[in-house]
Amino acid sequence: MKSISIGILGATSYTGLELVKLLGVHPLCELAFVSSKSYAGRPFSDVFARAGTVEDRVLISPQEAVSHSVECLFSCLPHAVSADLLLPFYKKGVRIIDLSADFRIRDAGVYCRWYKHEHPAPQLLEQAVFGLPEVYREHIRSAQIVANPGCYPTSVLLPLIPLLKDVDTEVNAIIADSKSGVSGAGRALKLTSHFVEANENVKPYSIGRSHRHICEIEQELSLASGSEVSIVFSPHLMPMTRGILSTIYFQTNRSPGECLSIARQAYQREPFVRVRERGELPATADVAGTNYCDLTFSDGNDATVIAVSAIDNLVKGAAGQAVHNMNIMFDFKETAGLPR
Amino acid sequence: MKSISIGILGATSYTGLELVKLLGVHPLCELAFVSSKSYAGRPFSDVFARAGTVEDRVLISPQEAVSHSVECLFSCLPHAVSADLLLPFYKKGVRIIDLSADFRIRDAGVYCRWYKHEHPAPQLLEQAVFGLPEVYREHIRSAQIVANPGCYPTSVLLPLIPLLKDVDTEVNAIIADSKSGVSGAGRALKLTSHFVEANENVKPYSIGRSHRHICEIEQELSLASGSEVSIVFSPHLMPMTRGILSTIYFQTNRSPGECLSIARQAYQREPFVRVRERGELPATADVAGTNYCDLTFSDGNDATVIAVSAIDNLVKGAAGQAVHNMNIMFDFKETAGLPR
Amino acid sequence: MKSISIGILGATSYTGLELVKLLGVHPLCELAFVSSKSYAGRPFSDVFARAGTVEDRVLISPQEAVSHSVECLFSCLPHAVSADLLLPFYKKGVRIIDLSADFRIRDAGVYCRWYKHEHPAPQLLEQAVFGLPEVYREHIRSAQIVANPGCYPTSVLLPLIPLLKDVDTEVNAIIADSKSGVSGAGRALKLTSHFVEANENVKPYSIGRSHRHICEIEQELSLASGSEVSIVFSPHLMPMTRGILSTIYFQTNRSPGECLSIARQAYQREPFVRVRERGELPATADVAGTNYCDLTFSDGNDATVIAVSAIDNLVKGAAGQAVHNMNIMFDFKETAGLPR
Amino acid sequence: MKSISIGILGATSYTGLELVKLLGVHPLCELAFVSSKSYAGRPFSDVFARAGTVEDRVLISPQEAVSHSVECLFSCLPHAVSADLLLPFYKKGVRIIDLSADFRIRDAGVYCRWYKHEHPAPQLLEQAVFGLPEVYREHIRSAQIVANPGCYPTSVLLPLIPLLKDVDTEVNAIIADSKSGVSGAGRALKLTSHFVEANENVKPYSIGRSHRHICEIEQELSLASGSEVSIVFSPHLMPMTRGILSTIYFQTNRSPGECLSIARQAYQREPFVRVRERGELPATADVAGTNYCDLTFSDGNDATVIAVSAIDNLVKGAAGQAVHNMNIMFDFKETAGLPR
Repeated sequence: MKSISIGILGATSYTGLELVKLLGVHPLCELAFVSSKSYAGRPFSDVFARAGTVEDRVLISPQEAVSHSVECLFSCLPHAVSADLLLPFYKKGVRIIDLSADFRIRDAGVYCRWYKHEHPAPQLLEQAVFGLPEVYREHIRSAQIVANPGCYPTSVLLPLIPLLKDVDTEVNAIIADSKSGVSGAGRALKLTSHFVEANENVKPYSIGRSHRHICEIEQELSLASGSEVSIVFSPHLMPMTRGILSTIYFQTNRSPGECLSIARQAYQREPFVRVRERGELPATADVAGTNYCDLTFSDGNDATVIAVSAIDNLVKGAAGQAVHNMNIMFDFKETAGLPR
Repeated sequence: MKSISIGILGATSYTGLELVKLLGVHPLCELAFVSSKSYAGRPFSDVFARAGTVEDRVLISPQEAVSHSVECLFSCLPHAVSADLLLPFYKKGVRIIDLSADFRIRDAGVYCRWYKHEHPAPQLLEQAVFGLPEVYREHIRSAQIVANPGCYPTSVLLPLIPLLKDVDTEVNAIIADSKSGVSGAGRALKLTSHFVEANENVKPYSIGRSHRHICEIEQELSLASGSEVSIVFSPHLMPMTRGILSTIYFQTNRSPGECLSIARQAYQREPFVRVRERGELPATADVAGTNYCDLTFSDGNDATVIAVSAIDNLVKGAAGQAVHNMNIMFDFKETAGLPR
Repeated sequence: MKSISIGILGATSYTGLELVKLLGVHPLCELAFVSSKSYAGRPFSDVFARAGTVEDRVLISPQEAVSHSVECLFSCLPHAVSADLLLPFYKKGVRIIDLSADFRIRDAGVYCRWYKHEHPAPQLLEQAVFGLPEVYREHIRSAQIVANPGCYPTSVLLPLIPLLKDVDTEVNAIIADSKSGVSGAGRALKLTSHFVEANENVKPYSIGRSHRHICEIEQELSLASGSEVSIVFSPHLMPMTRGILSTIYFQTNRSPGECLSIARQAYQREPFVRVRERGELPATADVAGTNYCDLTFSDGNDATVIAVSAIDNLVKGAAGQAVHNMNIMFDFKETAGLPR
Repeated sequence: MKSISIGILGATSYTGLELVKLLGVHPLCELAFVSSKSYAGRPFSDVFARAGTVEDRVLISPQEAVSHSVECLFSCLPHAVSADLLLPFYKKGVRIIDLSADFRIRDAGVYCRWYKHEHPAPQLLEQAVFGLPEVYREHIRSAQIVANPGCYPTSVLLPLIPLLKDVDTEVNAIIADSKSGVSGAGRALKLTSHFVEANENVKPYSIGRSHRHICEIEQELSLASGSEVSIVFSPHLMPMTRGILSTIYFQTNRSPGECLSIARQAYQREPFVRVRERGELPATADVAGTNYCDLTFSDGNDATVIAVSAIDNLVKGAAGQAVHNMNIMFDFKETAGLPR
């Protein structure tokens, strides 16, 4: 099978680093460029000593990047910035996997309400595909723009979507209590990511109805169920580097066992979703460094079932899922280059 | 003010160590003995190098302990064992603060159902007082047996009780999602407390309706409200040593602002409860090493309010609350010897 | 005994916070002001939720601070800045404990060589006393300016000074390999203190002859021995918040047992130095939160003895030692207000 | 290239798990069996949820294992136990990579002195090869028994051996101060590996001349130099899961720059040794999860040079190096299946 040439924008974020490492050993990729605005002109190892096989690659500016011909482009840039810099690639016909939030929200008005600025490329929204392979595989196959899902949404959507799609299953009063490692907050310096502040600390933030990932989660849950779904979502910062665990409470007419059957049915051929037995509660260490999402369902009380899911926020929650999307888009083996 | 003589059973658990440290610097206590079955005959420093001022104290056996005359006895023994060993002290009229679960549950049948064995001293249940000072202060003052509350229950009860006591406030569909440091699992060797297993990991356990602390929480919530209250409770193990954060979801006819007012009113004179502003979400590091419980209320959605509380599981969740109870029982200043 | 009024400059550093907490419960101190350039006008709790009893205190600017009459002033400011702002207090006769490096080095030329700028107040150097109570107690008693030692120097000097003072003991080829928690790097945002970079990482820095604390260590070792002493010093950053462990290798004509005897003799009446048995190797957790320095000596090989010492860098390595100095200066009980 | 069939004894240790994960994705290996005495009959996932592709494999007893025909056998058993169980495989001509200490020490008397029991198979010692590929590659190629080096020795030997082999370079007074993650202490339950004891703690152990790895380090340094070499070695336990950093002090007639040249020369074609520039101090996070050893040399003082090396104790310090040895023994590409 023929290799493809790829480029990465925003390669010096934690997500970028993870992507560089994955693609650096992917059997069917040639890394044409790695780009960074802040570190242009310097070798990757100036930013991360642990960059492995690509440590000697010199980072180029986004401007320079545009002159390269690549078949697939990954963007790890922040939202708003991302859509802007992708446009020239889009016009040249490059297939794009955007890890920012820019193309995740179908409605530019909803995007604007949550992200507090006009959408930078509303004309492209219609053709962007939400890159959750377990749900949109066939659309991803032919998409030019894939919007890679957020880390929290991935962990909340995977257990719930099969239930919401099932017409005989009612799911109400969803509360997602999510726990994330500090790498999810990025590499930018801020007090909440300072070691002394984050270590030996558990801290909620943006709880209830204020975190931006809510609009992404609700959009996909609503599409799955065919009617408006609303959630309560409470993220927490954990004293660890990697991983998201989501504990999701919902009211339903189903037993945990029935929920498990529905999920097993939905995911039986999925290479990266492991539906666990009822007693085997997922834990972040079980999926660290892998592209797996572990999930199960457990008894709440009469009316409530508890879903628990675990992912590595940098792999299944970001770079790994992006590679999975690329594998689908270019008709590679889906598991190629992905750690399990 | 006159000092009292005290003794500690089960002094070599993490809770025991914390208690020894607190009482070692308490201005009104004389430590008559520290006792341990496993380490009897050896100095405290054989068990904990960090025992501070009591490191040279030699631990005595529980049998030997009984021969000492003390005015106040603390037990950090496991449930079942605890009630047994307390009896001789009780008969001599010693006032007792039991940190085990043995005297927390009023109904011996409920105790038996959750703890899977007959209650070891049902005849004493009636006179035992649940040692949550903010609720039972006046009963504690004259009690001979105080049952020190569990760590999780302390963190869940303090935000909810004022609401449940308020006749105009409805509280339903309570879900408590709690996150605890590893010290809460004790010093006994087990794989889940092994550094390599617990580090870089978030792991739920006994979620839903299976953790023993549920019977204690429901008993006190029901007493506060005057009718049966039932909860869903999901504990999680965090990669840190100390602290519990509880994120509590409930349906109510009150706004978060109203909940805050009710809590402020209830706790305005309490030295160890800090009701925070709505935006100031509690974090475990803010209360580490102190006897504070920080709590606040925040928006969920139309029907749901979120309470967040943080305590140090070894202080307000165990040893600190025990000292607070002693201060009340012996008419000391309530804050004496307690870190803030 | 009469209380004294005190003020703190630079109160919002980690050292400042630790000092505020210690002085907030000290039985003989009245906190006249807490000052911060960056946070002037805001309550302490805006900076640290965990400030305990002083959380409502409003921080004042250094300029405002000068107008207060205090009997003792603590400065937690950075070097150079510190000496400057202390001058007006000095002129009013206030007794000063400076936690910066400004008054630790007796020779302004040496200071300039290591700190890369002219000394800001060379005229005061002669009267400043190096605030290591175990060595300079009598000078501290009457000093107007006490230079509180650095954290690494405290951990390296305490095991070695008794040996160097002993005329029959030879000590050569000293190598100090020190391991520090991240709080030692301060609260300023930098990549090396970012949680994701520091967690699960051990990293040496400024090893050999490049760390500034070398001049302070060599000055005091040379004064103790009466001749020039030179060391190799290698600090390392550990994935934890608090603590310094120094493993110190040196060639000597003494056995570890003889070193222990000399140290025991020197420290027998010291309240904050615990000379351990040979087999009991110090560990940072044993001294965390206390003002203790634990130390011992152990076999290297024929020619080499290994000293190991452990302190809490924020307590014995900074704020606790400063309070100890104050206790000596004002003739308080030496252990007053200090955690053990 | 043809695949080989392999078996693993002691597969449920941390080293075993790492090996299982590496071999599970190795392109040229077929896993014939995974064996464990304690867990025989149960699937791998009963022991480790995170076992990836082999989670459904059922563990077999060592007795059962012997009946399998494999071309290469890995043993992750403890010393003494290991040699015993390897014998039947040896007799069948199976090529063996032993990760225990049993075949590392050439002299059965030295082994007995350090390991406190008679060597279990002294007749095989002569033909066993010390599996440090950078030194013994050609012997490994044809060996039937390869003794995989210890984790600490790997980190200490790689920087020093090129210098000791160089006839014009003097190396004396070697002191190795090593810092290890807790996984190095294994999965057996003990208090020093309990999360609460190891977290927020730095602790030396077996310092000076008492750790068993000394005999292995001194044997190889002496062989490299052609004369007896003796060291001081001080291991420390760090609050992290993976990684060893060794800071090595030695007296030499060479400058750090010259040491670097010698090491670069020695390792220029080595795929897993990265000789860093003088300013670029290795850190454990830079090599975590990889088979790299990063090393450099830095200024001590006139007479002393400091070597710093970093490895992942479970990869280059154990399982990764074992796979490297297998690649050499079976003439595979040396980097096959190894993370970089």
